[in-house]
Amino acid sequence: MSWTVAEHGFDISKVTTNGNKYMTGNGYMGYRGTLEEFTKEQLTAVTLAGLYDKSGEQWREPVNAPNGLFTKLSCNGQPLGVLEADPLSHCQELDFRNAVHRRETEYGFHGGKLTFTAERFVSMDQLHLLAGRLTLHSTADCRLYIETGIDGEVWDINGPHLTERKEQFKAGTALSTAITGELKLPVAVAERAAFTFDVQETAGEGTMRVISFDAKAGETYEWFKYVAVYTGLDNAGDPAAAAEQEVLTAEKAGYEELLKAHCAVWEERWSRCDCRIEGDEAAQFALRYSIYQLLIIAPAESEKVSIPARGLSGQVYKGAVFWDTEMFMLPFFLHSDPRIARNLMMYRIHTLDGARRKAAEYGFLGAFYAWESQDSGDDACTLFNVNDVFTGRPMRTYFRDKQVHISADVVHGIWQYVTFTGDDSLLVDGGAEVIWECARFFYSYAYYNPVKKRYEILDVTGPDEYHERVNNNAFTNALVKETLEIALRVVQLLQDKYPGHYPGLAALFADGPFMGEFNEMLEHFYVPQPDPENLVIEQFDRYFKLEEVALSELKSRVINKNEYWGGGSGLATTTTILKQADVVLMLNLFKASFSKEVKQANWEFYEPRTEHGSSLSPCIYALVAADIGSPDWGYPYFMRTATVDLTGESKQYVGDLYIGGTHPAANGGAWMAAVLGFAGVQFDGEVLRLNPALPGPWQSVELPVILRGGLFRLRISRNEVAVTAAADNREPLAISAFGGGCVLCLPGAKLRLLNSVAASEQERNGQGKFIREEKK
Amino acid sequence: MSWTVAEHGFDISKVTTNGNKYMTGNGYMGYRGTLEEFTKEQLTAVTLAGLYDKSGEQWREPVNAPNGLFTKLSCNGQPLGVLEADPLSHCQELDFRNAVHRRETEYGFHGGKLTFTAERFVSMDQLHLLAGRLTLHSTADCRLYIETGIDGEVWDINGPHLTERKEQFKAGTALSTAITGELKLPVAVAERAAFTFDVQETAGEGTMRVISFDAKAGETYEWFKYVAVYTGLDNAGDPAAAAEQEVLTAEKAGYEELLKAHCAVWEERWSRCDCRIEGDEAAQFALRYSIYQLLIIAPAESEKVSIPARGLSGQVYKGAVFWDTEMFMLPFFLHSDPRIARNLMMYRIHTLDGARRKAAEYGFLGAFYAWESQDSGDDACTLFNVNDVFTGRPMRTYFRDKQVHISADVVHGIWQYVTFTGDDSLLVDGGAEVIWECARFFYSYAYYNPVKKRYEILDVTGPDEYHERVNNNAFTNALVKETLEIALRVVQLLQDKYPGHYPGLAALFADGPFMGEFNEMLEHFYVPQPDPENLVIEQFDRYFKLEEVALSELKSRVINKNEYWGGGSGLATTTTILKQADVVLMLNLFKASFSKEVKQANWEFYEPRTEHGSSLSPCIYALVAADIGSPDWGYPYFMRTATVDLTGESKQYVGDLYIGGTHPAANGGAWMAAVLGFAGVQFDGEVLRLNPALPGPWQSVELPVILRGGLFRLRISRNEVAVTAAADNREPLAISAFGGGCVLCLPGAKLRLLNSVAASEQERNGQGKFIREEKK
Repeated sequence: MSWTVAEHGFDISKVTTNGNKYMTGNGYMGYRGTLEEFTKEQLTAVTLAGLYDKSGEQWREPVNAPNGLFTKLSCNGQPLGVLEADPLSHCQELDFRNAVHRRETEYGFHGGKLTFTAERFVSMDQLHLLAGRLTLHSTADCRLYIETGIDGEVWDINGPHLTERKEQFKAGTALSTAITGELKLPVAVAERAAFTFDVQETAGEGTMRVISFDAKAGETYEWFKYVAVYTGLDNAGDPAAAAEQEVLTAEKAGYEELLKAHCAVWEERWSRCDCRIEGDEAAQFALRYSIYQLLIIAPAESEKVSIPARGLSGQVYKGAVFWDTEMFMLPFFLHSDPRIARNLMMYRIHTLDGARRKAAEYGFLGAFYAWESQDSGDDACTLFNVNDVFTGRPMRTYFRDKQVHISADVVHGIWQYVTFTGDDSLLVDGGAEVIWECARFFYSYAYYNPVKKRYEILDVTGPDEYHERVNNNAFTNALVKETLEIALRVVQLLQDKYPGHYPGLAALFADGPFMGEFNEMLEHFYVPQPDPENLVIEQFDRYFKLEEVALSELKSRVINKNEYWGGGSGLATTTTILKQADVVLMLNLFKASFSKEVKQANWEFYEPRTEHGSSLSPCIYALVAADIGSPDWGYPYFMRTATVDLTGESKQYVGDLYIGGTHPAANGGAWMAAVLGFAGVQFDGEVLRLNPALPGPWQSVELPVILRGGLFRLRISRNEVAVTAAADNREPLAISAFGGGCVLCLPGAKLRLLNSVAASEQERNGQGKFIREEKK
Repeated sequence: MSWTVAEHGFDISKVTTNGNKYMTGNGYMGYRGTLEEFTKEQLTAVTLAGLYDKSGEQWREPVNAPNGLFTKLSCNGQPLGVLEADPLSHCQELDFRNAVHRRETEYGFHGGKLTFTAERFVSMDQLHLLAGRLTLHSTADCRLYIETGIDGEVWDINGPHLTERKEQFKAGTALSTAITGELKLPVAVAERAAFTFDVQETAGEGTMRVISFDAKAGETYEWFKYVAVYTGLDNAGDPAAAAEQEVLTAEKAGYEELLKAHCAVWEERWSRCDCRIEGDEAAQFALRYSIYQLLIIAPAESEKVSIPARGLSGQVYKGAVFWDTEMFMLPFFLHSDPRIARNLMMYRIHTLDGARRKAAEYGFLGAFYAWESQDSGDDACTLFNVNDVFTGRPMRTYFRDKQVHISADVVHGIWQYVTFTGDDSLLVDGGAEVIWECARFFYSYAYYNPVKKRYEILDVTGPDEYHERVNNNAFTNALVKETLEIALRVVQLLQDKYPGHYPGLAALFADGPFMGEFNEMLEHFYVPQPDPENLVIEQFDRYFKLEEVALSELKSRVINKNEYWGGGSGLATTTTILKQADVVLMLNLFKASFSKEVKQANWEFYEPRTEHGSSLSPCIYALVAADIGSPDWGYPYFMRTATVDLTGESKQYVGDLYIGGTHPAANGGAWMAAVLGFAGVQFDGEVLRLNPALPGPWQSVELPVILRGGLFRLRISRNEVAVTAAADNREPLAISAFGGGCVLCLPGAKLRLLNSVAASEQERNGQGKFIREEKK
């Protein structure tokens, strides 16, 4: 099985998408999949998690650090780089098992061939460290020049963010320091280059040095680079001193040691989450690659950052955190690495005050989370998110002020965390406050309809952003209902389990609205229900009155390929065509509440009306297809989702706004489709249900999961599932497979559960059949 | 004083606007101010009130009848008409005292000059009749040809509407008949031409005849045309027979008799409403012209039609009735001709079922009146009222579904009628049902805010259509409140005065919502109030958060002069720039509820932010300027309003939609500004208050008014008002002038009331001073 993405030959048209495809990172920083000689023109970026800056009147975005891995060659005075010299051969590859990036390029020069290799990684062991090994080999004697150091000219969308830049050499260490413009935070990058052969060194510009030497034919010349990045957010004292120290230590340890430590952490990470698909190599490859993309951006060590919508692949979407995290990425981490899931949720707790400010700004109570959240939780989203391609004018959109489901998504995420892990300490650590504030927000957002005698949620934008400012969006209302229910359950839970904490927490809300109001609202709350005739749930009030038009017909009306389909005058706005799963997403979230018939009716109704204009959409159709027992309907959606960052075939522009980058939500969605969908892994906090619906070629899915602190290895095939519980699990787990009854899986136990339908020739009992194998 | 609009010379670029400016009509039909030889290319039209037709998938619009006044000349084989021959001189004029249109055109031909005159009128005495007197005079002998008859090629925007057209001559009468496409209603036009000299007649095409004769130098040749129009709506038996009979009778009576009868009715009409302004000829002229425009379209004889937004000047705006009637035209009729006011209100009563259907269509109770109302009261307004000039696509606008104030405007109109006339029989004749159904509509439209503990009106478009889908529009909420109050007062009134009728009427609403709910809603109903600091009332929730931009700056952003400023992406949508008076209109309607300081603060705040993109806007600023004692601020707005159909300087396009025609709402607004504003005539059903604020040059305003059935002649100057009550008035009237105390004006009395401030040199009593002169 391959764990390598590779590409032969250099194609300049792929520079941008390959920057995403070959990305490396470690949650502290992302390093785009660019080549050593690339500069900001090729969108080289070392994007820092959680460090934002605002330059002038432009929008805030993450800070990119100077690129300490920059290296440029020339041979006998002739520049050698893929942009200047047509290489004889070129290969770029990413080993995503170990998160190591490699390139090998062969250049011709008068009299010979020169082969350049570079290997690099962003250390998962030491989060501030990048390291590279580079080699040169020539078939003829020649004079080689290596320009290497720190490239301080960083790519910015709305920069510059680095002010007071200083570049210097200190005892062989290149040091680039700067201060961010808005928050005045220091950013320091240190670099050392270690040559294993004799060189002449002269100073280049700034933190560049020019190394030259006479290369002998047939010899291989190798050198190493060590780069450290620190900022004022790191609590590591002076960032410059810390960076300097770190590269010295790194050089002492040596590249091989560092790589080994890095790979060891990666091995541990994969051991928690690798998901094996038997029978479908393409799916296996794409799924692992998707998981890789999640692992390189996951904040393993910080609860102050979450995962931006474009990961750490640059500054697109302002480096902001969207609902994507809770709804599309969180499930992966909940099942594989609850520490990271906890960090993601703590980020929401730390940004509660920003959400409170936003609610107050709009005249509401409680917490209205940012649609685009950065460090403070204040909303980075503007009221004008898209430019009208016809007039060039900014277009008023209603992402910021009307996509209120974000607060319910946060609550959903926190409650999922508590449910999956059993770690209700998160509630005491701020989670309860978030939940209650979100419920209070919805209470103040809701209106009571005196004729229909019910509370409604008016004037919102649901996940389908092509239809703004709608009433009673089914998805939103269902999540608001869940928020109220969770708010009330948390009251109960804290009263029961944290009687010492509860009164103090509840006292904050003594003036209400609180329990009484939540109960009253819940009792009379409206959530759109399936039509009794055709079982379809109307996406929002009067959706069924919109123009019915085939997607192909709507596409034929497009005048400008970058025109926005939503907004006040968008092509889709007045039609039933939707951007992305909305009702179907709701059915997926609350799958236990709806019959198969309802799910199927809605899938069949909404699928042809869905443009999938968001990379978040197809995976949901895959999930629900699996849920209704039609995995082959879902398979194309799964593959489309799992390969989005491999093919680079996603929307690059909305209006005239560049939106390229990686797609963590799709990566998480691919995992959900494979594991929660096709493998049918469903955990509600009490029972693990395994109801696989594997696509044609899939023989089995095998993966480890952590549920309520216990580790279980699952092997799921059409007719049998095997569950192996770790010996040191503290609790047994109730398991039901193939719709059968529950069986307790004790620590250390290995269960095999058979599909009674498939096994019916052996035994007709109409129930899931199980065989318990006691631990040897 | 001139009563004549006249224009010398022929300017082809003015053909369209002159069609409006020189219009004649009688409420049954409008005849555009075109010339005798004009055809549909020059927008000649005989627009019928209340007869609508839908052709194919196009929108419904009024039917234009064939033009029985068509007349075309040639001399010695040379066609003579302003379009083909450059006339030596040409004059078009309208005597608007008598509603007579004249043209005189002098053509040169080889050897001489030919003078053609044509006079015509749309009879106010016989509503189906048009008549014309035409003459020819040549300075040299020549052979003249007159092509005259009925031009059946009518101008249609979305036609054809006349099917099964038949054209024939019956014993010298030209007869054109047809059937409308949708409702299959017959339309018949009969015409007779009576020559006072010998002619040869040959048949032309269809209902055209060609008359020829040898004209002698110096002789004047005169002939007459009599045209009658009948339709299947007229309850006059066979329309063709009726029309035939009418032209025969007309010819027998003769032109002079008919003209005399016509002028007599006009004299009677003017006696009811002529308003004399002493000291300002321009204002006097423009005001009388405005009144003329109202008189020619007023439905004096039918309670099944109201006044369309473009009067009877063609098919623009679908010939539909808007809120313009109640809010801008009704006051004139209430003060001058309550029978017509009653007809206008009865039209709303007759269309209640359409309003009920519209409410039900949107899931509401009660009556949601049509934004664009035609014969049935169903809404002719589409969801896409404007085309986007940049993409050519229809633009979703929210006139139809969100301009809910229309139902409150209707209630306001009915209640004004009852208040002014004292004729509460209208309530029993259906008015009460309309009022209650509108109140029920608003009860079902409203939402209760559980945190703010109040009912709100959400998601509406107010008069300022540049801001669609807003919450708590001050104007709308204030009118909804008034609707609820009126609904409750009507209950009381009927219980007291119509105890026999009330139980039956109220029984219709036994299931509620009714009194109990109206009371509850009123008690907790939110109407935006003046800010305590700056006294400004926010036009709607979060209006103050919009971009503040100068109107001139916004204009500089215009890319296409026809682009629509509202809608989802309009230039004004996200700014504080408004289309037309909104808060200020509310202050005008409820002037007794707000202090002068509040009115002034809002006038000063909103005026610079108002684009006056509607012809309904400036008059309101004039009214409120007068109300706050600054008539000179208001004077330019008054003049702009009063001359809109004289200058033709109004918007001709919105997007790519032609919206030209006359402006009855502005005509009514001009009257309101002069009489209710500058002259300060305010009647609340009990007391007539006269608080003039005359603009600089105005010495006095003099007019008759009918209040609660009594006739009063008012003469209002800065320091004195005189009121003369008709001797046969049945009741005395309480009058207060210059803010002073009330005095009763008995039948036959003549009062003079002095302005105590101006009169203070004579007598300092701080109160309005009055001198009662008993009837001689």
